[in-house]
Amino acid sequence: MPALPAFTDLDPAPRILLGPGPSMIPPRVLRALATPATGHLDPDFLAILDDVRHLLQFVFQTQNELTLAVPGTGTAGMEAVLSNLIEPGDQVLACSAGYFGERLALMAERHGAQVDRLQREWGQVFETEVIQQAVQRKPYRLVTLVHAETSTGAWQPEIHAIAEAVHKAGAMLVLDVVTSLGGLPVRIDAWDIDAAYGASQKCLSAPSGLAPVTLGARARQAIARRRTPPSVFYLDLESLQRYWVEPHAYHHTSPIQTVYGLREALRLVYEEGLEARFERHQRLAQSLWHGLESLGLEMLVPEAVRLPTLTTPRLPPGTDDAEVRRRLRQEFNLEIAGGFGALAGKVWRIGLMGHSCRPENVALLLAALRTILNPSAD
Amino acid sequence: MPALPAFTDLDPAPRILLGPGPSMIPPRVLRALATPATGHLDPDFLAILDDVRHLLQFVFQTQNELTLAVPGTGTAGMEAVLSNLIEPGDQVLACSAGYFGERLALMAERHGAQVDRLQREWGQVFETEVIQQAVQRKPYRLVTLVHAETSTGAWQPEIHAIAEAVHKAGAMLVLDVVTSLGGLPVRIDAWDIDAAYGASQKCLSAPSGLAPVTLGARARQAIARRRTPPSVFYLDLESLQRYWVEPHAYHHTSPIQTVYGLREALRLVYEEGLEARFERHQRLAQSLWHGLESLGLEMLVPEAVRLPTLTTPRLPPGTDDAEVRRRLRQEFNLEIAGGFGALAGKVWRIGLMGHSCRPENVALLLAALRTILNPSAD
Repeated sequence: MPALPAFTDLDPAPRILLGPGPSMIPPRVLRALATPATGHLDPDFLAILDDVRHLLQFVFQTQNELTLAVPGTGTAGMEAVLSNLIEPGDQVLACSAGYFGERLALMAERHGAQVDRLQREWGQVFETEVIQQAVQRKPYRLVTLVHAETSTGAWQPEIHAIAEAVHKAGAMLVLDVVTSLGGLPVRIDAWDIDAAYGASQKCLSAPSGLAPVTLGARARQAIARRRTPPSVFYLDLESLQRYWVEPHAYHHTSPIQTVYGLREALRLVYEEGLEARFERHQRLAQSLWHGLESLGLEMLVPEAVRLPTLTTPRLPPGTDDAEVRRRLRQEFNLEIAGGFGALAGKVWRIGLMGHSCRPENVALLLAALRTILNPSAD
Repeated sequence: MPALPAFTDLDPAPRILLGPGPSMIPPRVLRALATPATGHLDPDFLAILDDVRHLLQFVFQTQNELTLAVPGTGTAGMEAVLSNLIEPGDQVLACSAGYFGERLALMAERHGAQVDRLQREWGQVFETEVIQQAVQRKPYRLVTLVHAETSTGAWQPEIHAIAEAVHKAGAMLVLDVVTSLGGLPVRIDAWDIDAAYGASQKCLSAPSGLAPVTLGARARQAIARRRTPPSVFYLDLESLQRYWVEPHAYHHTSPIQTVYGLREALRLVYEEGLEARFERHQRLAQSLWHGLESLGLEMLVPEAVRLPTLTTPRLPPGTDDAEVRRRLRQEFNLEIAGGFGALAGKVWRIGLMGHSCRPENVALLLAALRTILNPSAD
């Protein structure tokens, strides 16, 4: 074997994370991660899973029995929902106005669906009437929609009316709440959503590696009526449910430490309260927007549908995208992200999510950007 | 919403984990888990991924470029390998002598393979000649084999000769090393294995949630020649590789904290050295076997193919399986596991893996079993 490099003590830079996720992890959650492991079938651990399930019902605002955390990242949550609800040949309508809307379409195709795309320019959202008309054209099995598009910073309004139209047409609605869950209102039951998935490392500020998922009655009936078992054993939601609740049948070895972290992060959300949390995200986002505007930056997304959790200012003309982000990182220990896909080099993506959403972080970022973008003003 | 229960401070019992995994996590690894998060594309984090990749090459004893940790548990590693290497209609030969051998067969079927099973009674292993003959019967694309069967406690010898026979017949060999990696010799390059996967939470004593995977040249060529992209986006190994190495293209948000833990756990393996580690597992397993025999217990698996990392004594006649395990847990804080499938109620599964493999744990378990099984002897 070739000689290996020296492996030093783990010591990554203590970044201030203001990108599109991960967000910063609160000290209580970091400490929970260091709790010694129990077995994944230990009664003490099953009680912890139960707490996580109840707390996820709380953040999703649902009473859905099948509400759990898939043992993977948000992408695994997306694929769990699609691979359980799609059988080869199914018709899917994918509402795509950004990278994640498009990823839903591509992933549905990998699972054998016939996908029609309803497209909007990146940064825009869908008019309810347009979706109402589109769902009537074919007997779609699923409509996929992104509540908070992490690639553009726009949020989709009128989800309840859209769900109504989808159901009227005999289809089910899958909702991506990766960048909204825990940061702005997500009301699974009130909106009548059939299936939704989020991520642990964004507005919940838990470690990445778990994807909250919830399925309503229509979705579970559809799974029960499948002609073939879901193609992905690891992401088989009814098997996962039989592990999370009675009979607690073995399916995989739960990522125990990450579950500890998620429980503590959800407990923090519960202690803060959803309304207070949403208000904090909205208030600090507004102060960020005003600050960015006072630096001469223009927002990609109009304020009416602008996400509080992810802001996408356009780059000032002539700005060296990578160089600004490098300086933020090296001089201020700050992480923000660039745009990607259609928006690469055109916008920045600034996240104010969960524990990262703090006044001191907004103030520091604005000060740092002022120094880098307007050096003469100093 | 219904009222929620009170959520107390996280405080699971400090179990001594002597089941089939998870094993106990060393303090240095627990502390690494509590390191503040960096971004998943941060240069500091990419350097950490590089360390993990090199350390995984070390434990797999391979120079395979595609050597990484899939963002899920061992089951995700199994499914990553199968879903990347199988296209619908492919012929697969599954060598099945236990639960995990059978799971490989079932999973291959979910991905559309035509599966032939080569079966042995649970607890037995395969004669090389039998596999040699079987692979010549059809143009198999894949042969699946379990190196260390977690459900029975047997290890498969002569892997190199089996790999040679598989290759001669034009097929590829997939090897499950979930319960061997880091506990007994696994020599991917010397044995000429095409694809192998392990788990983080067994003999490596890292937190669960990552599956080490390595692919050789034949397997990567087979992926390059696929007619369709791998069906599971989340487990697409070439996409994962493009995140782990240049161009570090976004695919998912790495489970950052778990990667921290895996790096530290692998560093501990590297510091101990593979040979010393294997010797420790073998030596303590032998002392466990002697102790169990002196309690009158008989081992399911003959010593020649008995795993050092997982021991399966038969239950003494008339023993109440669940009651013994309950008392071990409640009176001694010890976890061992029952058998499952064909061996439910017939054997216990006692793991001595990684950080759990310590003389004091062997001594305590033997003392506890003596108290419970032979109360009159006290």
